[in-house]
Amino acid sequence: MDCRFINALLRKSVDVTPVWLMRQAGRYLPEYRKTREQAGNFMALCQNPELACEVTLQPLRRFDLDAAILFSDILTIPDAMGLGLYFSEGEGPKFERPVQTAKVIETLRVPDPHESLSYVMEAVKTIRREMPANLPLIGFSGSPWTLACYMVEGGASKTFQTIKTLIYREPELAHTLLSTLADAVTAYLLAQIEAGVQVVQIFDTWGGVLTEPAFEAFSLQYIRKIVQAMSVPTIVFTKGGGAWLEKIAATGCQGVGVDWMTDIGRARERVGDHVALQGNLDPVILFSDEKAIRAEVKRIMDEFGDHPGHVFNLGHGILPGTPPEHVSVLIDAVKTHR
Amino acid sequence: MDCRFINALLRKSVDVTPVWLMRQAGRYLPEYRKTREQAGNFMALCQNPELACEVTLQPLRRFDLDAAILFSDILTIPDAMGLGLYFSEGEGPKFERPVQTAKVIETLRVPDPHESLSYVMEAVKTIRREMPANLPLIGFSGSPWTLACYMVEGGASKTFQTIKTLIYREPELAHTLLSTLADAVTAYLLAQIEAGVQVVQIFDTWGGVLTEPAFEAFSLQYIRKIVQAMSVPTIVFTKGGGAWLEKIAATGCQGVGVDWMTDIGRARERVGDHVALQGNLDPVILFSDEKAIRAEVKRIMDEFGDHPGHVFNLGHGILPGTPPEHVSVLIDAVKTHR
Repeated sequence: MDCRFINALLRKSVDVTPVWLMRQAGRYLPEYRKTREQAGNFMALCQNPELACEVTLQPLRRFDLDAAILFSDILTIPDAMGLGLYFSEGEGPKFERPVQTAKVIETLRVPDPHESLSYVMEAVKTIRREMPANLPLIGFSGSPWTLACYMVEGGASKTFQTIKTLIYREPELAHTLLSTLADAVTAYLLAQIEAGVQVVQIFDTWGGVLTEPAFEAFSLQYIRKIVQAMSVPTIVFTKGGGAWLEKIAATGCQGVGVDWMTDIGRARERVGDHVALQGNLDPVILFSDEKAIRAEVKRIMDEFGDHPGHVFNLGHGILPGTPPEHVSVLIDAVKTHR
Repeated sequence: MDCRFINALLRKSVDVTPVWLMRQAGRYLPEYRKTREQAGNFMALCQNPELACEVTLQPLRRFDLDAAILFSDILTIPDAMGLGLYFSEGEGPKFERPVQTAKVIETLRVPDPHESLSYVMEAVKTIRREMPANLPLIGFSGSPWTLACYMVEGGASKTFQTIKTLIYREPELAHTLLSTLADAVTAYLLAQIEAGVQVVQIFDTWGGVLTEPAFEAFSLQYIRKIVQAMSVPTIVFTKGGGAWLEKIAATGCQGVGVDWMTDIGRARERVGDHVALQGNLDPVILFSDEKAIRAEVKRIMDEFGDHPGHVFNLGHGILPGTPPEHVSVLIDAVKTHR
């Protein structure tokens, strides 16, 4: 597939910097909210291939985007492992059966992506059939560490006290859990590729809460294993990982995600000869106004400069309540930048 | 005052690395919980100089610490400005009257620290009188940016949407607010020094949620003004500011706080010729066990190496529920490190 987004990921020259947005399909769009209502709830939407396809394609109808990203949840793997994923209003994802004993960790099995996760593969096939042939579809998964955080904490956490206590008190048990998850993520992403995605992204949402040695031992090590098994261009995004870009780039991935706290110009100087960089607009900017959004896009584009290997994106997922017309401003600002 | 902590801050040689802990007085200690109950509530405790003195000194009785830190709240200044600080269980600090209009920002006045904040100065004098003469007392304040975050958001925030919208849409108005706060923090810290503290620390708890240019414009610029007005050694701690240590060190401060995500060895190579570094143990380690705590202290001590200018501390405040006996292990591990 010859397209702007993949060319930029491979650090080939492109006519215009490609752009897509993390969570570009989501509840800031009225048409998304309507489809979700039709589905009944969030997980029902993820599990219905036609409706998951519909919400994946909605942002492409509105905005001049250079890629689509599979609409799904980051926690499908633990759900398929039997943890009982559910969503409680205002508190985010939770598990009915969090992972809290050695016995449970040792009995966790890698889910067959063609069985308990077949709804994801069906969604990929449906989307791929329905979307423009010249646009790439991005598949994704949470990193093993990020999945483990939710699985052990039972949901979101401020301090990550339970999972961190596990890695410090029982590192071998933590490695057993993370190894199983690395195998599961590898199988899951390979199945997505087989079903039709052209690029995959690993969301290491919680890697940045670790010390550097713990990040290497409990997150990066497993990401590296997954990256090396991939057969398509792969992006690794560790939120809060700005200090570790060299190490992330050295996993063998093609793209590294950059949050908004990181200076993208210096990031490019550090790793831009090896990988493409994806980012790094603060999603909150989209709540300001056209002038501020254009100024901030220009600043990032100028900081990155006239070099290969930039994919414009947010530095984290788009926030609920973001005005869709401000997303249009952002994309126009990227596309018209000279 | 010739003491280990101040000598280390001034990068003089010391016999043993000094140690104190952010929030070393607090609700992980049963004796603290008892005194707080006696006071009635948290703000009543802060506003009672005898009881504030008592909880400041409690950790010195238990642990071999090299400094005391004034027991107070980070939000005393906005409270003295009339915003009505209160604490809601499980949600942290809130304001009855958040700052949300230009009119309110323009009418905010710098509180006279000897009037509406006199309870803090009384506490400092009481503590100074009661504590060992050879130990330094640390005064503190939130940074202007951090105070502004709470004042504009009305409490803690996940996204900082309201304050960030202010800085991007109405930067001049944001600067009016931050200038007033910088004057207020300067007067407040100078009054603490006059009352008897030997060192001050500026807590820039939320500086790390900004992009680098916004951090410089809306946080660091004001911190620099405050640092330059101080007459005692000053520590600046920006949580999540690991990428900006050079800029923080260049404010003229003597010490820079380092969170646990930052590698303290590389931090020392970057700025250790100019400033002392304070940190950087992950507070969650204190929930693990003696072996893990000792290993992590050793790792940090070895990474910093045999150089002047290290103050051992946590990378963020101690967490409620921390076992006090693990704090003893931490301090012993620092003091016995060779």
